[in-house]
Amino acid sequence: MIEDSALDEPGRALQRLDRAEALRLLAGTPVGRVVFTRHALPAIRPVNHLVETDGSIIVRTRLAASLTTAVRGNSGVVVAYEADEIDPVRRVGWSVVVTGIARPVTEPDRVARYERLLRPWVDKVVDTVIAIDPTIVSGIRLVDKTEMDEVDLRK
Amino acid sequence: MIEDSALDEPGRALQRLDRAEALRLLAGTPVGRVVFTRHALPAIRPVNHLVETDGSIIVRTRLAASLTTAVRGNSGVVVAYEADEIDPVRRVGWSVVVTGIARPVTEPDRVARYERLLRPWVDKVVDTVIAIDPTIVSGIRLVDKTEMDEVDLRK
Repeated sequence: MIEDSALDEPGRALQRLDRAEALRLLAGTPVGRVVFTRHALPAIRPVNHLVETDGSIIVRTRLAASLTTAVRGNSGVVVAYEADEIDPVRRVGWSVVVTGIARPVTEPDRVARYERLLRPWVDKVVDTVIAIDPTIVSGIRLVDKTEMDEVDLRK
Repeated sequence: MIEDSALDEPGRALQRLDRAEALRLLAGTPVGRVVFTRHALPAIRPVNHLVETDGSIIVRTRLAASLTTAVRGNSGVVVAYEADEIDPVRRVGWSVVVTGIARPVTEPDRVARYERLLRPWVDKVVDTVIAIDPTIVSGIRLVDKTEMDEVDLRK
């Protein structure tokens, strides 16, 4: 879907990604950013992730104590998870945001599997495996209108 | 400053960046992510930015209506702004987060200057120039301990 009102002078168009495409792009990049609220302030931290077949985002990190406490409770906590690949020179790329409840993974088999697959970069000592429900998945792609036209012509 | 407890198996160390270095890195990269609260949920969107000499982060975008409304009021709204450059293969890089009040820029001269310097990528029609106060500036750098030792030897 192209939003006409979002067309820009340099010839860029904004396309909304569907859920499947957004999750596919997210799964194909190793790094993203978990966004949460800490002491009533917006907070963000980059982490590595994997995407499960049901779309859950799995991260393993030493999150802020307030988030970890909330996540370890039964209630969970709503977070956003973002990844993007943007070329600032060509001004093309994509961004995906998943919003949903973050909960700790507690089943020993799953924890062991994720600890094997997701190697933390620094936070070796105290970390938690967290699964983020993909309740809302949104994504955009910035495309060069010229290239887009070329794609259309090939159809 | 090296945090001993944060040393990782693959030989990475976490260094905290001081404010000046963090703002210098932020100024040297064109793209970041503004983090805010929308309908009580964490929200994030990538934008391009510039950093003023006083450390204010200037962005120009069509923000979510709720943020724009809050920003246009006199109160401003607290946001976080993040940028990073992380090499997922070598597992080195940096991340900087600025937290502070976002307010609209209203002085016509400044608006005109920022509109000249900051070309929006897509949101041509409805956008606002926003300045984020750098109240809290934090940053980390992931370094390869081997390379760090080499630097130390040269001292």
